[in-house]
Amino acid sequence: MARVDHIGIAVRNGEEAVRLYQLLGFRLTGKEYVEDQELWAYFLEGDDGSRIELLEPTGGVIAKFIEKRGEGIHHIAVEVDDVRVLSKKLKEVGFRLIYEEPKKGARSTLVNFIHPKTSYGVLIELIQK
Amino acid sequence: MARVDHIGIAVRNGEEAVRLYQLLGFRLTGKEYVEDQELWAYFLEGDDGSRIELLEPTGGVIAKFIEKRGEGIHHIAVEVDDVRVLSKKLKEVGFRLIYEEPKKGARSTLVNFIHPKTSYGVLIELIQK
Repeated sequence: MARVDHIGIAVRNGEEAVRLYQLLGFRLTGKEYVEDQELWAYFLEGDDGSRIELLEPTGGVIAKFIEKRGEGIHHIAVEVDDVRVLSKKLKEVGFRLIYEEPKKGARSTLVNFIHPKTSYGVLIELIQK
Repeated sequence: MARVDHIGIAVRNGEEAVRLYQLLGFRLTGKEYVEDQELWAYFLEGDDGSRIELLEPTGGVIAKFIEKRGEGIHHIAVEVDDVRVLSKKLKEVGFRLIYEEPKKGARSTLVNFIHPKTSYGVLIELIQK
C-alpha cells in the first residue's frame, strides 16, 4: 500500500486560506490544535477523499518555515504499510530519516519523515495507519 | 467535483527521483516529453490512484524555479467541474489567475493557474477533464 495521504500547507491565517479551498469545492471536515507542533490544523477533503491540511502555526517549526520561505506547501504525507521496515530500507540506500525510530503520530499512526536534503527538496512524511 | 489530481514536483534528475517514489511503493505509469514546457514528466501512481508528477526541465520556467528555489514541490493540481466559471468567480473575489482565459492542457483538459501571490504561497493548477 502506497498512496498520497495528504498535502500539508503552511499558512499565516487558516480561516482565510480555508475559504479559497472551499471555493474550489473542498469540504472543511475539522479543525484541531496540535499542542506539540504548536499549530492549528484545518482539515479539508475533496470528493474522492483526497486531503489537504492547512497548518497555521502559533510558534515552532512551521512558524520558522514561514519566516524563512514564506507560506506554501510544507510536506506531503504518504501512507505506507510498515514505516519501520521502510525507514530501515531507505537508510540503507542513503536516505536520511528525521527520527532514528518512527514516532507515534495522531490517531495511533506511526510516522517518520525523509529529510528534504536527500529526497530532492520534498519533506515526505511516512504514515502507517 | 473537487479533488487533488496530482502533485507536481520539480527535480533535476527524474530517473533518480523516480527510484525514491518507487521505493515508497508508487508505480511509474509513464514518461513524456512536454515540448511547450520544456520538461520530461514522469507519472507516478499510488494504490488508490493518487498521482505524483516529477518534472525534469530541459529549460523554461521549471528550470528557473529550480535555479531560484531549488528542487521541490512546484504546484498542486485540483480537478474542478468548470475552470471557466471558477476562474471568473475567483477573480471576482480578488484571486489572480495566470491566464486571462483557460488554456487547453494535455489530453483535452482545460487548465488555469491561481497565482501563488494570492493563493497563500501555493501555485494551484485548476484542471477540467
